[in-house]
Amino acid sequence: MKVIILINCPDKSGIISSVTRFIHSHSGNVVYLDQHVDKFSNVFFMRLETDFNSENFNADSFKNAFEASIALSYHMQWRMYSDTVRPKMALFVSKYNHCLYDLLGRHNSGELKVDIPFILSNHPDLKFIADQFGIPFFHVPFSKENRKQAEAEQLTLLKAHHIDFIVLARYMQIVSNSLIDVFPNRIINIHHSFLPAFAGAKPYHAAFKRGVKIIGATSHYVTEDLDEGPIIEQDVIPVSHSHSIADFISKGRDLEKIVLARAIKLHVLRKTMVYNNKTVIFS
Amino acid sequence: MKVIILINCPDKSGIISSVTRFIHSHSGNVVYLDQHVDKFSNVFFMRLETDFNSENFNADSFKNAFEASIALSYHMQWRMYSDTVRPKMALFVSKYNHCLYDLLGRHNSGELKVDIPFILSNHPDLKFIADQFGIPFFHVPFSKENRKQAEAEQLTLLKAHHIDFIVLARYMQIVSNSLIDVFPNRIINIHHSFLPAFAGAKPYHAAFKRGVKIIGATSHYVTEDLDEGPIIEQDVIPVSHSHSIADFISKGRDLEKIVLARAIKLHVLRKTMVYNNKTVIFS
Amino acid sequence: MKVIILINCPDKSGIISSVTRFIHSHSGNVVYLDQHVDKFSNVFFMRLETDFNSENFNADSFKNAFEASIALSYHMQWRMYSDTVRPKMALFVSKYNHCLYDLLGRHNSGELKVDIPFILSNHPDLKFIADQFGIPFFHVPFSKENRKQAEAEQLTLLKAHHIDFIVLARYMQIVSNSLIDVFPNRIINIHHSFLPAFAGAKPYHAAFKRGVKIIGATSHYVTEDLDEGPIIEQDVIPVSHSHSIADFISKGRDLEKIVLARAIKLHVLRKTMVYNNKTVIFS
Amino acid sequence: MKVIILINCPDKSGIISSVTRFIHSHSGNVVYLDQHVDKFSNVFFMRLETDFNSENFNADSFKNAFEASIALSYHMQWRMYSDTVRPKMALFVSKYNHCLYDLLGRHNSGELKVDIPFILSNHPDLKFIADQFGIPFFHVPFSKENRKQAEAEQLTLLKAHHIDFIVLARYMQIVSNSLIDVFPNRIINIHHSFLPAFAGAKPYHAAFKRGVKIIGATSHYVTEDLDEGPIIEQDVIPVSHSHSIADFISKGRDLEKIVLARAIKLHVLRKTMVYNNKTVIFS
Repeated sequence: MKVIILINCPDKSGIISSVTRFIHSHSGNVVYLDQHVDKFSNVFFMRLETDFNSENFNADSFKNAFEASIALSYHMQWRMYSDTVRPKMALFVSKYNHCLYDLLGRHNSGELKVDIPFILSNHPDLKFIADQFGIPFFHVPFSKENRKQAEAEQLTLLKAHHIDFIVLARYMQIVSNSLIDVFPNRIINIHHSFLPAFAGAKPYHAAFKRGVKIIGATSHYVTEDLDEGPIIEQDVIPVSHSHSIADFISKGRDLEKIVLARAIKLHVLRKTMVYNNKTVIFS
Repeated sequence: MKVIILINCPDKSGIISSVTRFIHSHSGNVVYLDQHVDKFSNVFFMRLETDFNSENFNADSFKNAFEASIALSYHMQWRMYSDTVRPKMALFVSKYNHCLYDLLGRHNSGELKVDIPFILSNHPDLKFIADQFGIPFFHVPFSKENRKQAEAEQLTLLKAHHIDFIVLARYMQIVSNSLIDVFPNRIINIHHSFLPAFAGAKPYHAAFKRGVKIIGATSHYVTEDLDEGPIIEQDVIPVSHSHSIADFISKGRDLEKIVLARAIKLHVLRKTMVYNNKTVIFS
Repeated sequence: MKVIILINCPDKSGIISSVTRFIHSHSGNVVYLDQHVDKFSNVFFMRLETDFNSENFNADSFKNAFEASIALSYHMQWRMYSDTVRPKMALFVSKYNHCLYDLLGRHNSGELKVDIPFILSNHPDLKFIADQFGIPFFHVPFSKENRKQAEAEQLTLLKAHHIDFIVLARYMQIVSNSLIDVFPNRIINIHHSFLPAFAGAKPYHAAFKRGVKIIGATSHYVTEDLDEGPIIEQDVIPVSHSHSIADFISKGRDLEKIVLARAIKLHVLRKTMVYNNKTVIFS
Repeated sequence: MKVIILINCPDKSGIISSVTRFIHSHSGNVVYLDQHVDKFSNVFFMRLETDFNSENFNADSFKNAFEASIALSYHMQWRMYSDTVRPKMALFVSKYNHCLYDLLGRHNSGELKVDIPFILSNHPDLKFIADQFGIPFFHVPFSKENRKQAEAEQLTLLKAHHIDFIVLARYMQIVSNSLIDVFPNRIINIHHSFLPAFAGAKPYHAAFKRGVKIIGATSHYVTEDLDEGPIIEQDVIPVSHSHSIADFISKGRDLEKIVLARAIKLHVLRKTMVYNNKTVIFS
């Protein structure tokens, strides 16, 4: 049984030694370990991939023992994930279908190890794709008037389906704190620029106007500050004066698909940790 | 004899045909032609590499004939360059030496087809490198009090050495309009970020703080708006949480060197045209 | 009406002038022109995007006039394409679905301006995807014994559906001359390595064994020499010692999708010309 | 005092725990740890950056204790490096100067933390650069006849200057086993292609002939099989039909410089381990 442990705590000598000894003494094996120290904040981060014998391993008693003997003394924040549970991912979309097709294609190939209980949209346009892939589709329209009610409806759906995290696959609607507070660092957005350049609306138009020679895409966790959440993944491609805005949009689609898919995979493999509005990515 | 012709004018049917026929009828051969139409502004751009027989070719009479028969009727702005003249490039530096070493190394290898009449700095620190390469070095210190006088000194040097264009190779001093007006679109700067992100001072520090996963460098023509001139060339490299600001700076140095060198080469080969604060790069 | 003209001929002075004048004199406008001279072989290549008034334009008479007055005297090989006709593309697949999903997703979004009359496979596995997208699927199994018959069946299907070009979207079966001769430079393959490295079977395994730090994908026209046809497009991504062969395969999938899609788009836009087993790509 | 420890041994449960506990119990602190398991060969690799109090730390007694209590029982091969010693690097060159200029520029900026006791060449051409930078230059000509004697002369120089590793900065002479055996995995070469493509002579010419759309450079440790040693670093850049062989060479120079410099830095930071003709790079 594979168990992933994520730890962060004030940096101090001896953490690695203590943690690995503890795991070893509970008949676990450290398969892979990665760590990082943020020297500005003096914070230690560690991700461990461990193997335990499923027959002997009692997750609850391990948790309690680790909490009592290690986590407390080092003032750790820590989480533990077993690979026997598949995370449940909700997909939020609007009218653009390229990220949706890409993610569903990857899901069908077994590349994305998640369940997708539903696709939600503020528009009905992409229902046919959900149908194509046999995934439930919920149309929750948004307007100035119905915002509170629509958000309540979203939350009801998310809870009813035990959603672990949300992916905004070009969802063109600002997500409010009522959702963010329930899913902190668990809402992944794709923005179509290399942030912090061209935050906000119409980044390809802004990039064209500025005459940049590269365009990019950025995947980040959603916080209440629009396009300012912790960055998970970015990538860019070259453009030139010969490209129109339509070319930027078309080239950008490939970036958006790949950058979003990479970010989701990092999240699902528990390779992301968030601190001070930045990410530690154990890739 | 190789002659490069750069043209821009309002777009209209028949320009390519007229221009190529004219060159042909003057015993020239079009070796390479590149063109672009800016559809927003309806402006036509063209760069021609042509071959003329040196013995028969009279540049002045060609110019006059082209101006009278073609340029006037199409309302062209145009320039003509012969490869028999090497452009004169002045290097402005401060204390960082990586771009300076890189450019002088390229110059010594014959990769940069320019003359370098002098290196100018607001600090004396890099004089030893100028000495190493046998290039005159002028120390023109800057302070709030002596700005006007220092700029006058710079202009005197630039004129005395018949400088064609200026390269700010990490010159840490804002260049004012008194210089920019004399060298419009002929001052090339290297900024150590993927503009428009992180304009202004300390871009690596700002990039580190924001937690970006790519850093970049941008070479642009200097205009009176700081870091907002027409972009010539940009490139980026990936970074991660494990990199310190010092790592950003070290990785960035390689970017700065390459991006600046590429921009200079494009400028020297007359492959850049500027319009509406953007560049057309005929690469 | 947009007309694309592709020309190649022995290099000679005056070609651009003659061709553009001819188009102009037939009431056409050159919207975009790109050209190239292969100096080793002294061959001139040109691609023109032109605009003609649909009402007055007679394609056949234009062709005849161009052939008689220009093409003959310059010994040109040339072709003309109108944007009123959508090319017909056949997709050949085996068991891997990532390229298939990607291409069908792009097709549905309107990004690929082709018709897809059918999908053909030597295995029945991916029929469900063809069904999902409502595209006819033909299962043509291959064995040592039935090769000739299977190839005849393929040719019958290709002719019956007036196929213009074939895309091997990870089709794991060698295509023989009986097909190649009918579709010269019109069969596009995706190979999962940066050719010429790791030609042949299992390139990801070979790349892993060699310990390379980058892996790639290559799209090329199929010729009778396996993996040695003219390269249309290549791209790479970094890998490290920490990646398993499974990681190479997973990362490579994204490359394969993008590199194949780019090659198809270049082909469809008539931006590729083949000469001496190399391509000229007017991108 | 910073101490780097490199370990490899058969994989087994408990290694990380044992090693970190040992360091901790000797008043050391693990600043950074990276590890890797080669699952094919069942080999465990680890690199530790540790801090010891210089006053108390006795390197020899630490070594003996570690060897006796840890290394023996796990059958480790291991090495220990202190940051108080700067490695001595010999530069071998021929006639191309771009890598030499680049490395000496980096050395002068303090970016390369090595001593350079001498530059050696089979040609006298680059002596002027050695003079420029005040580094001794030895001209050791090679011919079929004098090979043995020349190699002996090289070895004498290398020993006399206590050289730790050799960098072939475009040294156009095959290095024989007489040198390789004395400097196993301590001779770094730069090859101007993305190996394994275009091994051997004239890779840019071969790449041009094949019509590839990317060219590359590869830095590797030298083994007796030409261009087949363990790869340390690779990078690529795009090229097109419009580039001549001269363009390939010019673009490639930038790649060569950067790829070689990166490889040297990884080597100097003790971030490379070699196994089965592959590298583990703890970057």
